[in-house]
Amino acid sequence: MKKIYLLTPGPTTVPDAARAAEGQPIIHHRTTEFEDIFKRVSEDLKIVFKTQNPVLTLAASGTGAMEGAVANTLSAGDKALVVQGGKFGARWSEICEAYGVEAVNIDVEWGDIAEPGVVKEHLDKDPDIKAVFTTLCETSTGTLFPTKDYGEIIRERPNTIFVVDAISGLGACDMETDAWGVDICVAGSQKGLMIPPGLAFASVSEKAWKLAETSTLHKYYFNFKKARKSLEEKGQTPYTPAVSLIVGLGKALEMIKAEGMDNVLKRHALLAEATRAGVKALGLELFSKSPANAVTAVKAPEGVDGGEIKKTLDKKYGIKVAGGQAHLKGKIFRIAHLGFIATFDVITGMSALELTLKDLGYPVELGKGLCAAEEVLSRA
Amino acid sequence: MKKIYLLTPGPTTVPDAARAAEGQPIIHHRTTEFEDIFKRVSEDLKIVFKTQNPVLTLAASGTGAMEGAVANTLSAGDKALVVQGGKFGARWSEICEAYGVEAVNIDVEWGDIAEPGVVKEHLDKDPDIKAVFTTLCETSTGTLFPTKDYGEIIRERPNTIFVVDAISGLGACDMETDAWGVDICVAGSQKGLMIPPGLAFASVSEKAWKLAETSTLHKYYFNFKKARKSLEEKGQTPYTPAVSLIVGLGKALEMIKAEGMDNVLKRHALLAEATRAGVKALGLELFSKSPANAVTAVKAPEGVDGGEIKKTLDKKYGIKVAGGQAHLKGKIFRIAHLGFIATFDVITGMSALELTLKDLGYPVELGKGLCAAEEVLSRA
Repeated sequence: MKKIYLLTPGPTTVPDAARAAEGQPIIHHRTTEFEDIFKRVSEDLKIVFKTQNPVLTLAASGTGAMEGAVANTLSAGDKALVVQGGKFGARWSEICEAYGVEAVNIDVEWGDIAEPGVVKEHLDKDPDIKAVFTTLCETSTGTLFPTKDYGEIIRERPNTIFVVDAISGLGACDMETDAWGVDICVAGSQKGLMIPPGLAFASVSEKAWKLAETSTLHKYYFNFKKARKSLEEKGQTPYTPAVSLIVGLGKALEMIKAEGMDNVLKRHALLAEATRAGVKALGLELFSKSPANAVTAVKAPEGVDGGEIKKTLDKKYGIKVAGGQAHLKGKIFRIAHLGFIATFDVITGMSALELTLKDLGYPVELGKGLCAAEEVLSRA
Repeated sequence: MKKIYLLTPGPTTVPDAARAAEGQPIIHHRTTEFEDIFKRVSEDLKIVFKTQNPVLTLAASGTGAMEGAVANTLSAGDKALVVQGGKFGARWSEICEAYGVEAVNIDVEWGDIAEPGVVKEHLDKDPDIKAVFTTLCETSTGTLFPTKDYGEIIRERPNTIFVVDAISGLGACDMETDAWGVDICVAGSQKGLMIPPGLAFASVSEKAWKLAETSTLHKYYFNFKKARKSLEEKGQTPYTPAVSLIVGLGKALEMIKAEGMDNVLKRHALLAEATRAGVKALGLELFSKSPANAVTAVKAPEGVDGGEIKKTLDKKYGIKVAGGQAHLKGKIFRIAHLGFIATFDVITGMSALELTLKDLGYPVELGKGLCAAEEVLSRA
C-alpha cells in the first residue's frame, strides 16, 4: 500500500469537489447551461488575476496562450524585450523567433532575477521595443521576478506592452495584473487553479487590444479578438471549449472565492516559508536568490545527486517532486507548495525529505526540518 | 425528474468507464507512468485512423489540429484547394486566409458533395496546388464526402498533399487514412472517440512530412515536427498534455478495441440507417444528398420551425439535438448517432421526435417512425 503525494509544480492535486464536477455527464457547449457556467468562470477568474480586463479561456496548455500573446500583438520584424533566467523565460524567446519577432534577451543566471534598472536601460536605449515578456515565477528555478517593479517602468511607455507568464505563479504569488500595469497576463489550469492541464488563460488590457489592431502575425485558433467577441457577446468560445475542465474550474474558483484570494496568497506564503525554513534547518541551501511562493528549488547537498533525491522520494515514499532541468539536472530538486496544498502536505514532504536524505547517507538529524517547518506553520 | 439524452454531434456522451478514468487523481506527465499511457494511446489511435503513420495528440480542440495541418506544411503565397459545402469546410478557407495561403474554393451547395471529377479538373488546371483540404463528414449538413475517391486523384500527384478534417466523422464513418492516401487526417476527442472536448489529433504521412520541410509559416504550439520527436523519442508531448483527457481516452480506446473497429463502424451504419428510415417513415425529408453515419440532418417539415423542434425536444423531453447553422437556422435539425450510442438511444430519439412533432401540430402517426427504425435495428 503506497499513498501518492503530488508536490510537483503542475499538475497539482485536483480537489475532490473539482474532480467530481469534471466527472459529471458532459453537457453540450452551445447551451445557456454552459454559457452560464462559462460567464461565471470568466468573471471569477478576474478575482484571481486581480483585473478588470476580460480573461480569455483557451483549450490549450499555457504555452498556447503565450503564443497567442505574441501572435495577437506583434508583427514580423518587431522588436521585443525578453527577460530570461530559466526554461520558461527562454520560451518567450523561442516563440518570438518562431514568429519572426526580434527578441532582445536579458539573460540572467538561472536562479537570479533581472534588476528593474536593466529593463529600464534597455527600453531607454531602444524605444522601438513593442513588448516586454517576463515570467512571474520561473518554475525551473523557483524564482520570483519583480513584476511590480517592471510594470512601473513599462506602464509609462505608451508604445510598449508588458506581458507576464504567470502560469506557475498565479494563485500562489501575488499578481496584481491591473495595479502593476500588466497588459497580458497568461496562466494555465494545472497550477494554482487546481484543475488538470488543458486550459490556458490570458487577460488583455486596453493597451494590448490597441496594439492588437496593428498586429499582422498569423493567428487563427489563438485569435484573442475572436475569443473576446465570443465571450462578451454570447458567453461562448469561438471553437469547442474543453467543457469538463471548465466545469471543474467553476468548482475550483468557488473554493478560491470561499477562502478569499488574499487568504489563498497568505496560505501559500506561509507554506513556502515553512518549506524554506525546513530545508535550511537540514543544512540545505535554497537555489534561488529570490524564492517564489509556488515552488522551492533546493540545491542537492555535496555528494548527493538531486536525481537520486527525487527518485527515492518517489519510489520509496510516494512523494512526487520535480528535478532540475537542463544544466541543473541532478543539481537541484524542487518541492512545490502550490494549489490545493495545506499544512500537513508540507509536513509530509519535509518528513519524506529527511528520511530520503538519511537513506542517501547525508548526515541528517531526523525531525530538525520538521520542527523548523512546524514552527513557521504554527503562526497560521 | 428529467433524464437528459445527448444526441448532439459532439460533445457526445462519455462512457462511465472513461469518466471514471478521467476522474482519477491526476498524475504527473513527466513520468514513465504517463509515458506508458501516452504511448499506448498513440498506438491505439492508429487502429481508429487506420494508419501506420504517427498520430499526434495536441491539447486543443479539433480546430487547433486543422490550423496545424496548414501551418506545418504550407508557406505564405502557396495555393490550396478547399472543398467546402458547410461550416467546417469553410473553416479550411478561413485558416488558409489567416495564414496568407491562397485558397481556391470548390463551393458546393450545403448538403451536397463535390464530384471527384471537379477536384481532378482543378488539380489538372492548376499544378501549383500544394494541398487539398476536405471534410470527411460535414457536421453542419450531415454530409459524407467521397474521401476515398478524392484520395485516388490526389495520391498520384507527388507535390500535392491530401488533408481531411475527420473531426466529426472518425469512428462513425469509414476512414481509411493510409488506404485512401490521406496525408493528414485531423480528429477531435469529443465525437467518435467519446471523450470530453480538449484533445485534437493529426496523423501525418511521409509525403506530408516531406512538404513540412519546406514550410515557412509560423508555428510553435502546434509544431508537428516537435510533437513527433517528443512522442517517438520519449513518449511525451512538447508542452504539458491534457493528462486527464488522455487517461480517459485510454479507456475509450480499450472499449473501441474490445468491440473491434469494424464493428464500431457497422454499429454506426446501422444506427444511422435506422434513424433515416424512422424520419422518412414520419414523412420527413433528409437534408443531405449524401447522408453520413455520424449525424442525420432532417428538414423541418412545412410550417414547423426547426428551432422549435430542437427546443421542444430539449425542454420537454430532455433530448439534446443540434439545430441548423447559418442560413439553415430553423430549416433543419440534426440528430447524432455518434460515439457511445446504441439501439435504444435511436429508439429514444425517435420516440421523442414523434411526440415533439405531435406537440407542434404536425400530423404524425405515433409509432410509425419507431416501427421503421426498429425494423432496421432488428437486423443487428
